[in-house]
Order: sequence, then structure tokens, then C-alpha cells
Amino acid sequence: MKNPSYQSLLTLSDELQLVGDTQALLGWDQEVLMPRRGVEYRGRQMAWFSGWLHEKFASPEVGDWITEVEGALDSEEAGAEVRANLREWRHQYDQATRVPKRLVEEMAQEKVLAQTSWAEAREKSEFSLFAPSLTRMIALCREQAECFGYEDQLYDALLDKFERGATTRRLNETLGSLRELLVPIVEEATARDRFDGSKLSGQYPIEKQEAFNREVAESMGFDFDAGRIDTAVHPFCSGMAPYDVRLTTRYDEKDFRSSLFGVLHEAGHGLYEQGLNTDHHGQPVGNAVSLGVHESQSRLWENHVGRSRAFWDRWLPRAIHYFPNLTGVTVDEMFEAVNQASMSYIRVESDEVTYDLHILLRFELEKAIFAGDLKVEEIPGEWNRRFKEYFGMSVDEDANGCLQDIHWSMGIFGYFPTYSLGNINAAHLADAANGDESIAKGVAKGDFSGLLEWMRTRIHQRGSVLLPDDLIAEAAGSPANADALARHLRERYLR
Amino acid sequence: MKNPSYQSLLTLSDELQLVGDTQALLGWDQEVLMPRRGVEYRGRQMAWFSGWLHEKFASPEVGDWITEVEGALDSEEAGAEVRANLREWRHQYDQATRVPKRLVEEMAQEKVLAQTSWAEAREKSEFSLFAPSLTRMIALCREQAECFGYEDQLYDALLDKFERGATTRRLNETLGSLRELLVPIVEEATARDRFDGSKLSGQYPIEKQEAFNREVAESMGFDFDAGRIDTAVHPFCSGMAPYDVRLTTRYDEKDFRSSLFGVLHEAGHGLYEQGLNTDHHGQPVGNAVSLGVHESQSRLWENHVGRSRAFWDRWLPRAIHYFPNLTGVTVDEMFEAVNQASMSYIRVESDEVTYDLHILLRFELEKAIFAGDLKVEEIPGEWNRRFKEYFGMSVDEDANGCLQDIHWSMGIFGYFPTYSLGNINAAHLADAANGDESIAKGVAKGDFSGLLEWMRTRIHQRGSVLLPDDLIAEAAGSPANADALARHLRERYLR
Repeated sequence: MKNPSYQSLLTLSDELQLVGDTQALLGWDQEVLMPRRGVEYRGRQMAWFSGWLHEKFASPEVGDWITEVEGALDSEEAGAEVRANLREWRHQYDQATRVPKRLVEEMAQEKVLAQTSWAEAREKSEFSLFAPSLTRMIALCREQAECFGYEDQLYDALLDKFERGATTRRLNETLGSLRELLVPIVEEATARDRFDGSKLSGQYPIEKQEAFNREVAESMGFDFDAGRIDTAVHPFCSGMAPYDVRLTTRYDEKDFRSSLFGVLHEAGHGLYEQGLNTDHHGQPVGNAVSLGVHESQSRLWENHVGRSRAFWDRWLPRAIHYFPNLTGVTVDEMFEAVNQASMSYIRVESDEVTYDLHILLRFELEKAIFAGDLKVEEIPGEWNRRFKEYFGMSVDEDANGCLQDIHWSMGIFGYFPTYSLGNINAAHLADAANGDESIAKGVAKGDFSGLLEWMRTRIHQRGSVLLPDDLIAEAAGSPANADALARHLRERYLR
Repeated sequence: MKNPSYQSLLTLSDELQLVGDTQALLGWDQEVLMPRRGVEYRGRQMAWFSGWLHEKFASPEVGDWITEVEGALDSEEAGAEVRANLREWRHQYDQATRVPKRLVEEMAQEKVLAQTSWAEAREKSEFSLFAPSLTRMIALCREQAECFGYEDQLYDALLDKFERGATTRRLNETLGSLRELLVPIVEEATARDRFDGSKLSGQYPIEKQEAFNREVAESMGFDFDAGRIDTAVHPFCSGMAPYDVRLTTRYDEKDFRSSLFGVLHEAGHGLYEQGLNTDHHGQPVGNAVSLGVHESQSRLWENHVGRSRAFWDRWLPRAIHYFPNLTGVTVDEMFEAVNQASMSYIRVESDEVTYDLHILLRFELEKAIFAGDLKVEEIPGEWNRRFKEYFGMSVDEDANGCLQDIHWSMGIFGYFPTYSLGNINAAHLADAANGDESIAKGVAKGDFSGLLEWMRTRIHQRGSVLLPDDLIAEAAGSPANADALARHLRERYLR
């Protein structure tokens, strides 16, 4: 599109991306390498970049450009990519300009206080220590949502921050049916005999784990000329451009599964980032579209690939090569060992089967909070009541209940559902891809290159051309629902 | 100083430092970690930061502020730090605004071309392949020097880029007397019997070298809570703030000295960066003052400390602990092993005694080039003639002669002399510090904490309050000259 305002937006967007990618390096470095005493100064650097990016974008001139191009869209030839760029610029611009500076600053301040009081409350397992901060944080998020605006419910504005186009109504359907499907599977899967973990016991030297993980990630298609794997307390993936994508994992010298599944998950994210269309880098359309789609890629490789029998058919011999103490372990046993379901308090330690129950509980609570139906002081009671209902277990203390996650102390509400969307999308996409016979044959033999190629074309290269729901529907041929996930879990856990 | 323009300059300076420190991280990451395919995009990022920093500083408003504060200096109370900040701002502003954008861009372009043709010329050892680029680069540097301005000689403007206040006239004196002192020392030292290297032969696992180097660096006073050591092809030190200083070294599994002396040298730089006055971080006065002073700190720890007998009295037992194959090697032998002088073609591989001859040769050539006394096509002949004169050896090919260094292809003229200034300053400062009896006693026992404390107070904490020559004179009680270096070399090599 030759429109000069559109060209100005492209130039600006490219500059913002370049600076934002630099801020991503600052953030990555802080988690992975930065010496301890650098933390305060790094905080100042991060804040400067956030401020600069905001100021540069949220200017009246940029608003004028966007408005002008919107008016010219019909008269000029504008393809899907131009329209998608404009859709995202408009959205980002409104988000950036609708929230007063005072509120941004108050939220940033409260975040620091709330994280401190949350950490103390969790340490002492005493919710009342966190309640005052949480009350203020919820009020601030409510105010922010009012600034953003919403059509139906206030919580929609928070959901939309993390998953463009997501609404409470739509999630009620999707996650509601997921719950109905999930409950009987969970019941049966968790009642089964547990695998005898002692069969895997032994020492797993970190260098050997690194070498094995690298071999696996390379075979998945992760390009080490455009990426790295490092060590961090919490595994994550940071894409600083499709040419530079960095994963982290953590090592347990007594169990190689921890680092391996960290790498499988994060390399799933990484393949998405490396697979973005480099011609679009610097434009909104060149970015990954949402958390729910990103998580579909990580879950695909972690669960559908990494926990499959075909994967272990192929990789167990290599695992034994690196870890000779596994000699004698059969593929069946390894398959069992990576597919264990059990009820537990803590979300981040939970398995593929029960994981979404943890999310559903949080989704219900967040909805109730922002609908005004649940007061802060009622949260622990309501959490525990629902936990008993979903998991059949009584929460022993709030540290194992409503105090376990950091999210709310950071003012992050509306984020949790994207984890379940990721699981639903992963199963739905895997199903669709396996509809291609040659892909299914490859997958059955432990060759996942066809699966990657399918994702490359239909998800990665598409970037943000479509909104998340539409992208999934286009890619899979039908909108995502929980059926494929339920089927996958039944096949794997109720054999 | 309460002057509002001065306050504006402080605020701007702080912001420029913060952004410049981020660019330093981009640069460090590029050398140490960045995946191969990230290089082009990283180049764009680096260029953006350079452009942004230049544009932000070289604005008419900033010029007005500086002029205004200069006018107010006498009427207002202005201490040494205020005056030093202003001196540096004025200097940087003039440098930034005197060079037309066209020239900056042409130099950047020629740099890319010249490095490529230099690499090819060096590979084939054929100077004529590099000559056209070098001719253009010299013309551009000459033009740049004319923009900067100079009082006496054009070459002064180039020297001043790297060593504030340095002039050809002054360097002729200092380096001239160094040469006179050096020639007989070199002759005698290189004629001596060589140490039998086979006594140190063995395998030196990298993890052991890392552990030993870390122990040494920690004992020097390098703070690992505010710094790191990583691996890179060329050892370097990058200070991204006094709280975050990163060294690199490289490993030879057959010789632990390579990585150790890399760390000793770079940790010398690192101690300087960590020792800067954090209250002044973000102001010109808070920065290290010059290359020649920086190099004094690295050479101090590398040569005066790390190659001393007292150092090995203390550290040989620890070296044997990490590298058992050294068992039986005596302190005398180790002292010999790290103090070997010999004539050689390549500067970066040369020893403490002959190193400065390499620099003196380059200094003479650069002077002649910019005085118009030496044409580009005459460089190889003149290099070889002088090499024969200084080293008594004939250069066999240009790759071992005038094509060995990358500097000229990057348009870096006037830089080489700072290496020798570093050596001269190191010896001069070490001499002065050892004048304090308690420091000398510590040094003799292998305890270098007093030496560090002396440098902390008199060099590191002083930042850029004074110009380099004045700082050294203040710290040592007399201006630097080559005497201390010559004395040091005689004592060590002509025993």
C-alpha cells in the first residue's frame, strides 16, 4: 500500500520492533546471565524502554496516520496483511492511549508492593497478608478494563489483553465443555496404578542431558544457528527476532525428564518464533498472534509429540546411549513414565490430564471477582470449595491453594485461560494435521517433520494475519473445541 | 550546580548512558552468545542505537545548554566535577557536530568494504588487494581530522579520539625515550636461553581452568556479584555499569597460561570498571578516562602482578591443585615460563619485552602517513625496513607484516600508541604504589589488596575528573615517563 501514512506506520513499526527486541534481550539477559548487583540498574533500563516505546507510539500524529489509513482502506488496494496491520495498530493505539499515565504508574507501583506481600503471604501461608494489596490490584485492573472498554462483560477487556478477540461468553462454552469432558477422564486416569519411578532412578549428568536435549531439539527442527538453549530457574522462550530465539530449561541431576520436557515445551514456542515470516518482521502481522496459539505449539511438542509412544520408540535408544542406567527400560515403561496422572495441589507440577482443572478453577474465580460476585476475603473459601469439588481433595493450606501463583500479584487477570486454550488448540491442530495421511505415517514412525511443515505453513508463516480463533479455524478447517483434547487424553490415559 | 541548563545536561547524560549501556550489552552478546544468523539484524540494532545517541546529543538545544553553562561557570560555584563534565560535554559535542553526516556514512560504508578487502589481502598475503580501500580510508580519516581540528599536526586529532589530550609532540618524547631504553633490553633479553616448555606439557581441562581463573580473579578483588567471565574468540572486557562488568577469555586445553593471562588482563580492566564512582554513573566524570589509563590497569595485573615471582609463590600450589601434572614444577621454573622474551612477527603474540617495539613501528608509520610523507603503496616496504631495523629480522610476507592488524581497515588510526601508554603508565603507577611500604610488603608476599586499594582511590574513583596525563601525574606524584617500565623490564629480564 503506497499511502504515505501507511508507509510512515511501517517505518515506525519497524523501529519499535527493533527497540522492543533489544528490550527483550535485556529481559532475557536478566533472567539468564546478569550478575546479581545489576538488578536495580536493569530495572531502570527496562522502565526506560517501556516508557520510550509507549511515548513513541501513543502520539497524536500516529493516531492521525491510523485514522487516515482506515479511511483510505476501501479506496486503495489493501490486502489481508495491510488490513491486519491496521487492525493491530488501531488496537494497540487505543490500548496505549486510553489508560491515563497516572493509572499506569499506580499499577507499576502496586505491582512491586503486591509481589512483596504475596511472597510473604505465601511463605507464611496467610492470605490476610496479601488481601489488602490484592484488593487494590483488582480495583486498578477494573479501572484499566473500564478504560479499554468492552461490549459485554468487564472481564472481556482483561481477557482480550492476552488473547485477541477472546470473550467470557465464548470461553464459557469452550472451557465449560472441556470441563464436562474432562471430569470422567480425570477420575479414571488418576485411579490407575502409578508407574514405579525407581526404574528410572540414577544419576543424569547435566552435560549428558544438554547433549541429549540438543539432539532432540535439532531433530524437531529447532535451528541452533538462529537460537540457543540456556539454563534458568523458570523455563521460558524469548524470541528476539526469527533469527535469534532463545530457550531456557532447568536441570535435575536425578531425573532427565525435567530438562527434556522443558526443552520440548520451549522449543515448541521457539519453532513458532523461528518460523515467523521474516519478510514481515517489524510489522504487527509478522508477530505470533496470541498466547493461546503460542501455547498450542509448545503443548504440541511437549505432549502430543514428546509423550507419544512413537517418540520413545525413536528416542529411547538415544536416551540409553546418553544415560546407560536406563538400559533395560522398555518403550512401554518409558511411555508410562512420562504419562502419569494424579491429583495434586500445585498447577505447575500437575500432569497433562489434571492441568486444565487447575485453569478452570482460576477462570471461574476471576470471572466471579470481576463480576462483583466474589469479595477478596471470600477467595480462599471459594477456592477451597471448588478445589474439593473438582479434585475431591481438601486444600491443606493457602500456600497450596489460592496463594500458589504469582499472576494476580502482578495484576495479571485473564491470562490463565490461555493455557487451556493452548491445550485445546494443540489437540485440535494435531488432529487436523494427522488427517493428512503422510503426516500421520511420519508421526507414527517418530518422524515429525511433516507435522512441523504443516504448522509452518498454516500457523507460523501466517503470523497475525487473522485473529486467533479465525487462524485456528482456517488452519484446521473447523473452529477449535475441546473434543480433540478429550479424545487425545482418553486414547492416551484410558487404554 | 543548580543551573537549569546544567541540570538538563545531567538528565540527558544519564539517559544517554543508560541507552549506551544497553548498546554495550548488544555488542557483548554479539561477541559471546548470539546465534550466527542474528548478525545482520544485530548490525541494524547497533546502527540504530548509534544513530539515536548521536541525534539525541548533537542537537542545537544541547549546544545552547553547554554554551550557557560555560558562561555561568565563573559566576556560580562549580567544583572540579562540574568542570570536568562540562569539559567532556563540550568535547563530545564538538566531535559529534563537526563531522557531516555524509562523512559518517561514507566511513561506515568504507569500513565494511575495507574489512572485507583487508581479510582477503591478509589471507592471500597480497597488500595490493587492500591498497585501494586503505587509500580511501586514510583520505576519510584525514577529512575527519580536519573536521575535528588540531593545533599542531593533523595526526593529533586522531590521537585525541582515543587518548584525550595526547599529541604527536608529547608522544614523540615519551615513546622516543621508551625506544632508546628498550633496544638494549630487548637485545639482551631475547638472546637468553629459552625455557623448556615441555615441563608444562599436559592436558588442562577447561572446567579446571575456569575454576582456577575464578579463584585468582576473586582474590584480585573482582566482584562476581557485579560481573562474569565468559568465553570469546578475542578476550575483552565490557563494562555495562559498575554493577555489571563482563570479561571474556579463551581456552587452550594444552596450556592453562592462555586463559589465565587473558583473565588477569581483562580483570584488570574489569576492576577499573567496577571501581568507578557509582554516584557519578551517568555523568562523563563517572567514566573511565582513556584507553591509555585503562590499559595501565590491565597491564598492571597481567604483567606486574601475574608475571611476578610473588604471584607464583602464592598461586603455584593452587595451580598444582587444579592441574596435578604441574607437580614438581618449581616457582623459579614457573616464573621463567611466564617471562619469555623473543623476537616475533605478530604483535598480539608477542611478549612483555618486545611488545612496545611493535607499537613504536606502527606509531612511526601512522605519523608518516598523515604527515603526507608515506604513500600507501610504500607502506609494505617501509614496514619491512623498520621491522628489520627494530627486530633484526626480515618480514617473510605481508600477512606477517603490515597486513596483520585489523585496525586500519576499521579506520582506526591513532589507537596503537595507547597500548604503549598503558605499559608506561602501569609501570609508573606500580612504582609509585610500591613507594608505600605496606603495599610493597603485601605485594612481596603475593597479597595485592593494598595495590588495588591504591588504584581504587587514585585512579578508579577519580573517573574522568582530570585528563589522562594529569590523572597519572596526580596519582603517582609525577608525570609518567618510560623510566619505570625500562627499570621493571631490566629487573625482570636481565637478572
